[in-house]
Amino acid sequence: MRSAYPSYVALSGGVGGAKLALGLSRAVSGDELLVVANIGDDFEHLGLYICPDLDTLAYTISGLNNWQLGWGRNDETWNFMDTLADLGGEAWFRLGDRDLALHVRRSRRLRDGASLSSTAKEIAFRLGVRCAICPCSDDPIRTMVTTDAGELEFQRYFVEQRAVPRIRSLRYQGAETARPSTTFVDALSGDGLKAVIICPSNPLLSIGPILAMRQARDALQHTPVPIIAVSPLRSGKAFKGPTESNMRDLGMTPDSLGVAQYYGSLIDGIVIDHSDADLAPQIRELGISVTFADISMPAPEDCERLAREVVGIVERNEIRKQVVE
Amino acid sequence: MRSAYPSYVALSGGVGGAKLALGLSRAVSGDELLVVANIGDDFEHLGLYICPDLDTLAYTISGLNNWQLGWGRNDETWNFMDTLADLGGEAWFRLGDRDLALHVRRSRRLRDGASLSSTAKEIAFRLGVRCAICPCSDDPIRTMVTTDAGELEFQRYFVEQRAVPRIRSLRYQGAETARPSTTFVDALSGDGLKAVIICPSNPLLSIGPILAMRQARDALQHTPVPIIAVSPLRSGKAFKGPTESNMRDLGMTPDSLGVAQYYGSLIDGIVIDHSDADLAPQIRELGISVTFADISMPAPEDCERLAREVVGIVERNEIRKQVVE
Repeated sequence: MRSAYPSYVALSGGVGGAKLALGLSRAVSGDELLVVANIGDDFEHLGLYICPDLDTLAYTISGLNNWQLGWGRNDETWNFMDTLADLGGEAWFRLGDRDLALHVRRSRRLRDGASLSSTAKEIAFRLGVRCAICPCSDDPIRTMVTTDAGELEFQRYFVEQRAVPRIRSLRYQGAETARPSTTFVDALSGDGLKAVIICPSNPLLSIGPILAMRQARDALQHTPVPIIAVSPLRSGKAFKGPTESNMRDLGMTPDSLGVAQYYGSLIDGIVIDHSDADLAPQIRELGISVTFADISMPAPEDCERLAREVVGIVERNEIRKQVVE
Repeated sequence: MRSAYPSYVALSGGVGGAKLALGLSRAVSGDELLVVANIGDDFEHLGLYICPDLDTLAYTISGLNNWQLGWGRNDETWNFMDTLADLGGEAWFRLGDRDLALHVRRSRRLRDGASLSSTAKEIAFRLGVRCAICPCSDDPIRTMVTTDAGELEFQRYFVEQRAVPRIRSLRYQGAETARPSTTFVDALSGDGLKAVIICPSNPLLSIGPILAMRQARDALQHTPVPIIAVSPLRSGKAFKGPTESNMRDLGMTPDSLGVAQYYGSLIDGIVIDHSDADLAPQIRELGISVTFADISMPAPEDCERLAREVVGIVERNEIRKQVVE
């Protein structure tokens, strides 16, 4: 008999994380998977409440994503944005005509008093996502980036400034008081849980905001199942995005060892690329199991392949849960 | 030397009125014309501030209007709306992808503290409108329609209910306290003013809200120049919209005589269709001059033709100003 709770909880940001989440949604049945999304990138723009990671997850898992662009929807048009620019409006954050409908719909529901979790559930259902997706919290968390050019809201840093300014520090505004969403904490304590997967997202910008919630971190540390990260870096390079420069800026080693060091005792195992085998001994010294795989995911089939390898590790009980005092 | 104020002030609603406004913008030079728009149809929808008549005017005069549909923009796409419907959102009020940009831009500017007048001016400039367009007021006026099915907001009656319910009464909520926009009242008292034209719009739904402002009505009654209406009805039929049924519902004669009776002593002249010549004697008994013209405007050339006839009446001083005690 199947549990009312998921077997797998995946923590994820956008692009890279969403690819593994897609793979997991194909590797296990829909009701076995809960994907918990970063909300540190969320922001209000043009009067709309925009959740880039929740949306990238919903689009990617439903197969509506733009695989080439890495964000937004396929079969998209840009007439709204082009006209807004003609009218003198803000055009630095590109919103496609179809994508826009999702933001308008969610903003309306939130104004009507709906929680972010319920809007995410409704949108995922409408888009045909078969697994569960929830925000890490229904309270706001905003990643603020202090750069050489001063403190910037995340999207100003990431999109408007193209992640070019050097980062001096990060803070996750609101995380101190934000409570993890009910769906998230319930899943972590639910019977039937087999593993928590940290998707190959930017540790600092995508997973950091989730872990910055004390209750979430506590719940993760006390979960009896293994927590397994998949490295977002291969040979010290990110597949997309500023992960390596972010890590370097903040004094971390910009490779899979640095990722393992960042998660530390929170994780029990990490999946790194075959080409990073030389880093394995140092990672194992941290008490973290290491598994090798081809971590590149250029196409949906690769997402499923990598996800099946991660699920296989769990099903075969290859990762021993670390004992936390 | 040209005056700083317009020579012609045109009061207008959407479609039919906008056609004559387009014609006037071609018949006189850009700085000679101010088009004053009805705002009784304005409403908030999907978190956006929507001004159907201001927008139809801006689109029509700039040549961006959808001539077939009678509203919205040409070269429009509907991906936003289709996706919103897929997401379970409200789809009864159709907003095209390009049109939407205008509503988002205006809503943003209004939230930033801009007046409706300044947003109208900015939008008209961006769209390439050469004459001036202003709302009749910067304060809200909302036309409320009491029907057999209860009181409805204007757009619920007009769009959602397709103007089908029988009207029992109308009220222009906010009109008692709304002040006419500065541009409007300044133009009425400006030197160089030659005439006020009441465009062939629905008298009850499009011109009524403007006239319901006491200050506007006073200013119109005291202006020394002739006020000339162009009838929106030919042989008792409207070219588009529910004018005749609205008039009938409210106990008025649904023809050009009924229009003249509605405006009464406010107007000095009316332009009616040749085919309505039999109504002229009764209209003249009201002390209103009657001029005949072909009032149909199926294409832009017709708009310009009719506008030139109206301007000709003014330039030839054919309408004697009625003396109001």
